[in-house]
Amino acid sequence: MKILVINAGSSSLKYQLLHMEDETVMASGLVERIGDLTGKKIHKKFPDTDREIRVEKNGEVPDHRAAMRFVVEMIKDPEYGVISTVAEIGAIGHRAVHGGDWFKAPALVDDAVKEIIRKTIPLAPLHNPSGLIGVETAQELIPDVPNVVVFDTVFHQTMPEKAFLYAVPLNLYTELKVRRYGFHGTSHKYVADKAALLMGKKPKETNIITVHLGNGCSMAAVKKGECVDTSMGLTPLAGLMMGTRSGDVDPAVLAHIAEHRGMSMKEIDVLLNKESGLKGICGMNDMRDIHEKADQGDRLALLALDMFCYRIQKYLGAYAVVLGRLDAVAFTAGIGENDAVVRSMILSGLDCLGIELDKERNIGRSKEDRLISTDTSRVQAWVIPANEELQIARETAAVLNP
Amino acid sequence: MKILVINAGSSSLKYQLLHMEDETVMASGLVERIGDLTGKKIHKKFPDTDREIRVEKNGEVPDHRAAMRFVVEMIKDPEYGVISTVAEIGAIGHRAVHGGDWFKAPALVDDAVKEIIRKTIPLAPLHNPSGLIGVETAQELIPDVPNVVVFDTVFHQTMPEKAFLYAVPLNLYTELKVRRYGFHGTSHKYVADKAALLMGKKPKETNIITVHLGNGCSMAAVKKGECVDTSMGLTPLAGLMMGTRSGDVDPAVLAHIAEHRGMSMKEIDVLLNKESGLKGICGMNDMRDIHEKADQGDRLALLALDMFCYRIQKYLGAYAVVLGRLDAVAFTAGIGENDAVVRSMILSGLDCLGIELDKERNIGRSKEDRLISTDTSRVQAWVIPANEELQIARETAAVLNP
Repeated sequence: MKILVINAGSSSLKYQLLHMEDETVMASGLVERIGDLTGKKIHKKFPDTDREIRVEKNGEVPDHRAAMRFVVEMIKDPEYGVISTVAEIGAIGHRAVHGGDWFKAPALVDDAVKEIIRKTIPLAPLHNPSGLIGVETAQELIPDVPNVVVFDTVFHQTMPEKAFLYAVPLNLYTELKVRRYGFHGTSHKYVADKAALLMGKKPKETNIITVHLGNGCSMAAVKKGECVDTSMGLTPLAGLMMGTRSGDVDPAVLAHIAEHRGMSMKEIDVLLNKESGLKGICGMNDMRDIHEKADQGDRLALLALDMFCYRIQKYLGAYAVVLGRLDAVAFTAGIGENDAVVRSMILSGLDCLGIELDKERNIGRSKEDRLISTDTSRVQAWVIPANEELQIARETAAVLNP
Repeated sequence: MKILVINAGSSSLKYQLLHMEDETVMASGLVERIGDLTGKKIHKKFPDTDREIRVEKNGEVPDHRAAMRFVVEMIKDPEYGVISTVAEIGAIGHRAVHGGDWFKAPALVDDAVKEIIRKTIPLAPLHNPSGLIGVETAQELIPDVPNVVVFDTVFHQTMPEKAFLYAVPLNLYTELKVRRYGFHGTSHKYVADKAALLMGKKPKETNIITVHLGNGCSMAAVKKGECVDTSMGLTPLAGLMMGTRSGDVDPAVLAHIAEHRGMSMKEIDVLLNKESGLKGICGMNDMRDIHEKADQGDRLALLALDMFCYRIQKYLGAYAVVLGRLDAVAFTAGIGENDAVVRSMILSGLDCLGIELDKERNIGRSKEDRLISTDTSRVQAWVIPANEELQIARETAAVLNP
């Protein structure tokens, strides 16, 4: 079966067409700056192989419908395409950010499902509308092919109440659905399952902490293959320090800022989401820039790095207790995969958790899954490159062939 | 030397007169409902001894000045008093909640110090004004005796930047002093020092997690006698779940409530401080009531207990990592001292941290310091009754006789 994976953001659309029998990527691409005159469209046939062919087209992309039309044109293009008709596509898998607690599993799209996704919009007003647009344009342009929505929150739906409820009046949960949901679920699940496989075990036999460090950052405590706690919350603002997001702060900080800066709740929300995190401390949110400055001895760059790693260490300790027995820690996403310095800062001095970093293994660069702990480390440490699209395709296939 | 300890709240005033040579309490008392027609005044001579004499007087206490006049009258009363003139008092030690980062140590009061305390008021608008009133009425009614202010934040001033800074724009720290301060410092210091003593070590030789569970709840990671991290933040709202306070929540929860409930920032602040925590989940904030309901199988009481203990466990794990080597965990304050069920829920299943609870020792009730871990537990667990007044008196004496 061939599965088309669509990841529609508010102004972008990423796609991959996968051949599921051998889980290879037949084509992939990216449309950026949707709604802008300076749109950018990139398509690749046989990406990351020696047969790769890359096409780039720039110019206005008025809306998501136009972006989806580009996808359809390219994948069946005589020269750059890989199929002759969209009827060859067995299913379309969509990434959606927020499934609330309505969705405990990926969902085959029908009118009822679309209606529930509409209900989730208040929980993720910035993200969920584009997910829905992705589904609707796919239904229009690639008719008669089943659509499956894979939610970023679903993997975390196994959390127990004590982990997902906030200690606020319970009616905020029953009436407004205020609770911890967690995000990056597709990534955490992929990495946890892969780590188990790499250890020669079944997910059910392992307790793993997954550490997703990208533009957004989150961690999950995964017990016997199921998420039991995660660092993001009602929204992706909570938990770890991120590129521009604050992560956890005393909730009273908001009232203090409002009073002394005369800012509205909306302005503070933007401040905490867009002007905080690494950027708030040192003015930069790209970890490569921060390392460059830190190497020159820049005090604020060093401080930002310290804060970033320190918070991850605290969550590692917390989740080790939550899991009771810890088998492995697995890093993924941009920083998690590529930043040996950050990984070393996090894992050094964690003997108390039974983690012994192998410095040589940690420094090695590779796009492959790899062990970075010593052979004698009681708890293993892994780097596992993210593959969200493959996970979405797998879950899409599983919905259709349960 | 005799030291009078004054703890002035917004509508209450607690006091103790201590004889420092043997650290005994000569007299103590409490004035409640200041500003109310139903004021309540209690004074005890030789409290908690077989010579205890108790006096209770009810009726209007118009202001803190009237409360302080009661204190002065009672301690030198021919029948109920213990001194003949206030000139016998060597010093007065005052508890103050917030010293900002201006105060790194307790302060001998002069005009400059009062001026700085006035500057802290925006950081603790509910608490610091009454602390200042306590100082000023003491200066007026007990002239020519030195006053020392002991801040709840001072013990935490040794935290490193990575622990006390929030990942928000740095100018919120440099201009508005937004950072983690931590509270209950006098209690955490007393308990950490006492735990070291009980282990036959110096504070400098021990790494201890102190767990203060009272009406407010907080924890501190104390490394070699110095605080390196603590759970409360800019205000006492952050961190653990408390009687009526939420502790940590996704900061985006506030904007969500504001939007969907039409509440103002002030209303949400009250909601998180007064209607949340244990009360928010099960409607009760007294742990004894919660146990009674939980014993009857009440689902929400059990849930509130579960959430309360789970969060403490996560902080234990986080702080164990922060400390690197953990020697002891010490419980104090109302719940910490008296609630064997809560202690058992927290410490059971923490083998991963090297803590082995002794169930018999844990159940035993006593007002004495006591070990509750097994003799073979790698990390010791202690119950240490709080004695904030003694700690304030000690620190007051130390300021005068450095």
